Amino acid sequence: MGETFDPATLRFNEAGLIPAIAQDHATGEVLMMAWMNAQSIAETLETGQVTYWSRSRAAFWRKGESSGHVQRLHELRYDCDADCLLLMVTQTGPACHTNRRSCFYRAVRDGEVVELMAPLTE
Amino acid sequence: MGETFDPATLRFNEAGLIPAIAQDHATGEVLMMAWMNAQSIAETLETGQVTYWSRSRAAFWRKGESSGHVQRLHELRYDCDADCLLLMVTQTGPACHTNRRSCFYRAVRDGEVVELMAPLTE
Repeated sequence: MGETFDPATLRFNEAGLIPAIAQDHATGEVLMMAWMNAQSIAETLETGQVTYWSRSRAAFWRKGESSGHVQRLHELRYDCDADCLLLMVTQTGPACHTNRRSCFYRAVRDGEVVELMAPLTE
Repeated sequence: MGETFDPATLRFNEAGLIPAIAQDHATGEVLMMAWMNAQSIAETLETGQVTYWSRSRAAFWRKGESSGHVQRLHELRYDCDADCLLLMVTQTGPACHTNRRSCFYRAVRDGEVVELMAPLTE
């Protein structure tokens, strides 16, 4: 028997937010990092569709609501300090607003910036 | 020809920090999330050993310096907004201070907390 998950045990920052890493459940690819608040976590667990909190817009960000590039939650994990989330997701289409599969499409190699993937064409 | 990487293009927060996700280069496992400042990034790129900035101790945190559980940098990546890093690493021993392979050892399943991995025994 596990203990009941209590979102109040999570450690939010002074703005009431916690970072959330989205990882592709099937491939292990890290897709993006964004922020959640208590309500977006509750909504994500309830609906199974990932909802972030947009700091720039100061509004809920139901991932894929306009683009269709939704993230279906497979599992929510959290770390030892309870101050970071890891979302195992199934990503429809690209995760990145640049139309790339992952937001982490740039690498530093020998001091130079290398682009790891091109935007998807649909 | 790529462009030269300029750390000044990264977007640090008001405390001069940027979140850094460490991912096992070989297995794809997400190991931990911690913070870096400009100097810890420079040191990490220069030495190939990952150095974070500890917010609680307000000091450089040379990962594994006391435990021996070092992270060798394979590649530094960053996201579309340049406000999050993804470190592809080779992890010696457990990444987590609880002696688990990954800090993300707890999952929420059907409203309960499930432990995904036990501490390593050495």
